[in-house]
Amino acid sequence: MSAAEHLTTAGLGATHLPYGSYSTAAGVPKLGVRLGDHVLDAAALLRRAGAAPDDIAVTDTANLDALLARDRAAWDRVHAGLVHAVSDPAAAESIVAEAVPLTEVTLHLPFTVADYVDFYGNEFHASNVGRIFRPGQPPLTPNWKHLPIGYHGRAGTIVPSGTEVPRPRGLRPEPDDPPTFGSSRRLDIEAEVGFVLGSPAPQGQIPLTAAADHIFGLVLTNDWSARDIQAFEYVPLGPFLGKSFATSIATWVTPLACLDHARIAPPQRDTPLADYLDDSAAPPWAFDIVIEIVLNGEVVSRAPYGTTYWTAAQMLSHMTVNGATLRPGDFFASGTVSGPERGQRGCFLEITWGGAEPLTLADGTDITFLRDGDEVTLRGKASGPDGGLLALGECTGRVVSAR
Amino acid sequence: MSAAEHLTTAGLGATHLPYGSYSTAAGVPKLGVRLGDHVLDAAALLRRAGAAPDDIAVTDTANLDALLARDRAAWDRVHAGLVHAVSDPAAAESIVAEAVPLTEVTLHLPFTVADYVDFYGNEFHASNVGRIFRPGQPPLTPNWKHLPIGYHGRAGTIVPSGTEVPRPRGLRPEPDDPPTFGSSRRLDIEAEVGFVLGSPAPQGQIPLTAAADHIFGLVLTNDWSARDIQAFEYVPLGPFLGKSFATSIATWVTPLACLDHARIAPPQRDTPLADYLDDSAAPPWAFDIVIEIVLNGEVVSRAPYGTTYWTAAQMLSHMTVNGATLRPGDFFASGTVSGPERGQRGCFLEITWGGAEPLTLADGTDITFLRDGDEVTLRGKASGPDGGLLALGECTGRVVSAR
Repeated sequence: MSAAEHLTTAGLGATHLPYGSYSTAAGVPKLGVRLGDHVLDAAALLRRAGAAPDDIAVTDTANLDALLARDRAAWDRVHAGLVHAVSDPAAAESIVAEAVPLTEVTLHLPFTVADYVDFYGNEFHASNVGRIFRPGQPPLTPNWKHLPIGYHGRAGTIVPSGTEVPRPRGLRPEPDDPPTFGSSRRLDIEAEVGFVLGSPAPQGQIPLTAAADHIFGLVLTNDWSARDIQAFEYVPLGPFLGKSFATSIATWVTPLACLDHARIAPPQRDTPLADYLDDSAAPPWAFDIVIEIVLNGEVVSRAPYGTTYWTAAQMLSHMTVNGATLRPGDFFASGTVSGPERGQRGCFLEITWGGAEPLTLADGTDITFLRDGDEVTLRGKASGPDGGLLALGECTGRVVSAR
Repeated sequence: MSAAEHLTTAGLGATHLPYGSYSTAAGVPKLGVRLGDHVLDAAALLRRAGAAPDDIAVTDTANLDALLARDRAAWDRVHAGLVHAVSDPAAAESIVAEAVPLTEVTLHLPFTVADYVDFYGNEFHASNVGRIFRPGQPPLTPNWKHLPIGYHGRAGTIVPSGTEVPRPRGLRPEPDDPPTFGSSRRLDIEAEVGFVLGSPAPQGQIPLTAAADHIFGLVLTNDWSARDIQAFEYVPLGPFLGKSFATSIATWVTPLACLDHARIAPPQRDTPLADYLDDSAAPPWAFDIVIEIVLNGEVVSRAPYGTTYWTAAQMLSHMTVNGATLRPGDFFASGTVSGPERGQRGCFLEITWGGAEPLTLADGTDITFLRDGDEVTLRGKASGPDGGLLALGECTGRVVSAR
């Protein structure tokens, strides 16, 4: 019996092996992989697998940074070495003995975030927001179907799952008066899929066909949003303080290679695309991932990422087509994931239609936006091999009152 | 005679001592200070001045990063130690002997950029842009006088003065047709003052009164802008590819403490401000700095930074009021600096009124936006002690054809 079989109930775990940065009470942060409810030291596994010294060196570190600076070939070798180690019956006893229960570790950001871009790539979400914010106008702006709209977010306030989120303060619009300063009254989430990038591209211009050379893996992302602060500030230069207080990401990065079984075709394109975005002849870059939004333990939505119009490959091609360079640790997120039904929407702005249609929880409470003490968890499930499901690392955060 | 007197023609140099990261042909990058046309090793000077080991340690490095991570007291001690060293006649001979001519060094980014925020704080600029882009509507958006509008830019494409700027490509709007993909036809500059931040603020919320504890120094900044790409993409989430290809900054950072003589009152505020932005009782945070815009050697504008409505202290208070943390190496820029006259405008969009009023150069050529081969240099002059002028490090870049 292999370590994978010992430590997981489903065989899926052995091929998934998401990466994270963990520390025990005594030690400094180390790069690890998750297997079931345990963490394994990545470099120790690679040593067992007889990996090359260079591959061991880039994993014998605090987090993914050194591995991200390498290339796809190194990523694939390291992942294969880790899978080999946990699948080897001869090594099982030692590996199981050295595995650390998740309950005994502290998890950190799995990589150092370089630049962070947040996209707006889901048509259901963008249309809903357009209808809510700009009633009577076309729901999508004229550029929406021509390019994946995105903007830079604050990299320094990306926090690991589990970090408390203090309610932000700022200037809030008032119906007939000047804005007032105070705590946000419309604190919201945005359920997104984040993409961790690596393998530097010093001249940018990454074509669709090279996307897999630079997209290392996926993390669930919650782009916390203060809708009132955002609404007052965002014309003409976009969201700023309404977003920059916190963005939570899962502490486990799923390697892209583990999601081959989840690949699906993106939605039909109904507007001709520039060559650098035209993916009609490319392999499918959408993923069959459902994000469950869990509020204080209750599932309030199941957002289907596969409905997202713009793919990660298109986003990467777009954000570098102007020559913008790519650094290891660059990160982008899909934008809020929503489906066509109310129960598939990815934020409370949409679920409650701007607060006009409160959501009734199981205990009978009506809510619109988030209250102090509310805990929101994103759970992701992707199609895996053999008809199974692969669980992405969860992304959780609790709202606390303004500092 | 002191080293300062040997190496500069004006006494101002000895108190200015801007910081930069330099390397000679043989060596690795080091933190230095500029004195006239020479570079001096910062740590070597501090050793001569008998500085504390900690202060020497944070300067015996490649750039400003370690010093930025300290606090204002350390910044002041280090600057004072450097001034002391170059003012000491007894040390002059050795210092002059060790000084490296600027012609013999390569200059690098003076610090590692963490997050980059670009503001929009000048009323002349914002009004002109409003009139050009949204004719018939009020030139300023309703939020403009209530808060300093800003957005995050791409930190990874901030480049040191002297770096060539390839013309970016992207989707450009066409009058009656779908957008076309190609090289920008409306490549522009934005003359700005940038502010280098340090001394971490893990809970954000930096009040106006603490601004000087976190603003380390100033650098001239050119926020290159592709107006056509920007115009098509920027609604509703703000500028993205129209800016993210390159932002140039000067290679010499002027310590804030050197600009006390340039402090002036900002423009009169005509809209009541929230407490966190109300600077009516605060020391003046505008600076009497004029930015000369030099196109291929010809001065085409003199933009007066002192006309900028929102101050750096207000910008810092604003960007952290929501709890956003501050890291060493965070950086923000003022937004384009313009004055009321045509000859004081800070970008070609304004100088040529969206291209409708070409600028005639000395050789009779009419220009609107930048051509391949054009070199733009920003030179800044601030009021210094004794009625003199203090020259900020210049920021230059040459446009080359699209890659």
